[in-house]
Amino acid sequence: MNPKMNPFLNPFELLQKVRQQAPVVHHVTNWVTIYDCAQIVKTLGASPVMAHAPEEVAEMTRLASALVLNIGTLTVEMIGAMKLAAAAANQKGIPVILDVCGAGATAFRDRMIFELLDQVKINVLKGNASEIARVSGLDVRARGVDAAEVAADLAELAQTLAAHRQVTVAITGAVDVVADGRGICRVRNGDARMTGVVGTGCMAASVIGAFAAVEPDHRRAAAAALCCYGIAGELAARGTCGPASFKAALFDCLHNLDQATVEGLQRLEG
Amino acid sequence: MNPKMNPFLNPFELLQKVRQQAPVVHHVTNWVTIYDCAQIVKTLGASPVMAHAPEEVAEMTRLASALVLNIGTLTVEMIGAMKLAAAAANQKGIPVILDVCGAGATAFRDRMIFELLDQVKINVLKGNASEIARVSGLDVRARGVDAAEVAADLAELAQTLAAHRQVTVAITGAVDVVADGRGICRVRNGDARMTGVVGTGCMAASVIGAFAAVEPDHRRAAAAALCCYGIAGELAARGTCGPASFKAALFDCLHNLDQATVEGLQRLEG
Amino acid sequence: MNPKMNPFLNPFELLQKVRQQAPVVHHVTNWVTIYDCAQIVKTLGASPVMAHAPEEVAEMTRLASALVLNIGTLTVEMIGAMKLAAAAANQKGIPVILDVCGAGATAFRDRMIFELLDQVKINVLKGNASEIARVSGLDVRARGVDAAEVAADLAELAQTLAAHRQVTVAITGAVDVVADGRGICRVRNGDARMTGVVGTGCMAASVIGAFAAVEPDHRRAAAAALCCYGIAGELAARGTCGPASFKAALFDCLHNLDQATVEGLQRLEG
Repeated sequence: MNPKMNPFLNPFELLQKVRQQAPVVHHVTNWVTIYDCAQIVKTLGASPVMAHAPEEVAEMTRLASALVLNIGTLTVEMIGAMKLAAAAANQKGIPVILDVCGAGATAFRDRMIFELLDQVKINVLKGNASEIARVSGLDVRARGVDAAEVAADLAELAQTLAAHRQVTVAITGAVDVVADGRGICRVRNGDARMTGVVGTGCMAASVIGAFAAVEPDHRRAAAAALCCYGIAGELAARGTCGPASFKAALFDCLHNLDQATVEGLQRLEG
Repeated sequence: MNPKMNPFLNPFELLQKVRQQAPVVHHVTNWVTIYDCAQIVKTLGASPVMAHAPEEVAEMTRLASALVLNIGTLTVEMIGAMKLAAAAANQKGIPVILDVCGAGATAFRDRMIFELLDQVKINVLKGNASEIARVSGLDVRARGVDAAEVAADLAELAQTLAAHRQVTVAITGAVDVVADGRGICRVRNGDARMTGVVGTGCMAASVIGAFAAVEPDHRRAAAAALCCYGIAGELAARGTCGPASFKAALFDCLHNLDQATVEGLQRLEG
Repeated sequence: MNPKMNPFLNPFELLQKVRQQAPVVHHVTNWVTIYDCAQIVKTLGASPVMAHAPEEVAEMTRLASALVLNIGTLTVEMIGAMKLAAAAANQKGIPVILDVCGAGATAFRDRMIFELLDQVKINVLKGNASEIARVSGLDVRARGVDAAEVAADLAELAQTLAAHRQVTVAITGAVDVVADGRGICRVRNGDARMTGVVGTGCMAASVIGAFAAVEPDHRRAAAAALCCYGIAGELAARGTCGPASFKAALFDCLHNLDQATVEGLQRLEG
């Protein structure tokens, strides 16, 4: 083990656990990036499932080791499916990750997020800075689904929301911030080209889901997940010349991540 | 500026405006190509949004600078969402692009198209030759969603429909024809390999949406959009050996389009 | 013709028929892999259509030469659309392929599969070993949508189910087994990397659909389809280094398959 390494945060160790245990990660997600969310989970060596019919969503969740919810193209019916799935996940004791995609864009979206937070137990709340600011009650006006600027201190924002909602908060950005009310991690891995590819945010939540399926400390799981995913992004940026070749390389590099690469490139604090 | 250039049609200038203004382009679209429509908008440097819940679709549209509708996998509910979105777009004064995907394939599809045209203001009507012929009232029987042969003169067809419906008509094909009742543009850029990739037609409408978001003359916007998109297709065709590598290169090349390339390759009239 | 070749099974001949006749292949399918199902059909030179509104699904089916159903993200409404489509296909006499994606994962899913099998005529039933075992009535508990281990003899399983349901059964796996109650084919083409890409199973059903559109012997059509698709997978595995580059190469290689390659690599029995 690299002597610089933090024993609390050993991303490669968790990645290997995902590959060995191959957890089933169930999704109730959006129609834009549903394929990519499934493929990123499969690329990790885990097993993605996506199903949303009210007649089966709870039963499918009970087959899984983590549940990922994403409100990108939410409807009242899909929120209903998410509640059924999350209730089953809560009962089984598996982690529930909620990607608050587009929080702040519309009143309906915000209302549905708060309904989910109030009615089921969310274990990891993931969003970009403006989305998490909005869920924290700040008056941020989102510009669609891309991150808007936020004047607040992100670490404080994450810590406060984590303590208030009893949830692990993961803010993705140039530096990812993960807080759980007890502590905070920062992940400096990643590449700006990731923001040029639709779905990299949604996929981050799926990667967190796969890691949380094998690691009960959700701050540790989320930080390790974002670290490995970010390293894959850095590797993908080498030698690609546009968003499509970058995206393909992101999957390929994540698939091929080895111990020396992760330990050599990880930039984690906390 | 290249001395051959037409001052009315300067595609690179509009592409740069898209990149600088990064307009939000809202979509109510189909489930097959929804990812690609989002990614092509992001590849242009603009910001895609896709949301269709009746509770938020109007509010989301009001955040946008253009609205793209596509009936590829239409249902009565989605047409309802399209009407709400288009009404909000009309009220805000942002352009509405309608891709009449699959027009002529079924009676239901044709009826929904005419309902949209009658109940909301469409600014750009986009389709392949057989789809536009059908919307013009010709008796064309579509073979699914791929273009069927049309015996009519496309320029005349486009002009007549444009004048009748007070809309800019964009017919995509080997030569794209854009007419608005006042004039006509022809775009000779593109590559036949584009027809071998599912979604290139849908993406063309999204590209038009991004350009129309920054240019109030919709004939100019649509012609410039199809020119830049077609040039990316020509560049992508160099050195790729099948539909998947071609598609990846199409995104990468569009992302990297520079002034010298666009001005050197553009083949526009009107 | 290669002297080793079986005159009953000439995959390249059928591939050429697909390319020449360019059949329309209609789909009522899932939201995860819908794009890939369309693109694989287009890559074969055929014409994919996906439409599910109850108002048009039967009419759209009547334009097609084959119908592919996939229950990956089924709902009661989508099963309703599948029944309307299949009834239209049965009436027109075109083949209906049912991919029993996720059979055994939930009671709802199994119930819907049996409803389809009981209420409409399915011509080709396609699944992995555990899915087909479940449809055969064995007590297999699926782990989401990935294949679980099955203790039964697959050839016997396929033959028994084929005879019982009067259907051609295609079991995909390391060795694909196709049975129709009269005989059995085995296809040894393919590459393990295909299981690392989401949607390769769904696409197999679409490829079968395109081949069944041009060949009335469905055992022959399915075996030829899986052979060509598997060969493309083998070619794609050469020189790619991860799931995304492999997937792109799978499409490119299928697009470029020529007679010498197919005849040189085909590993078919029966």
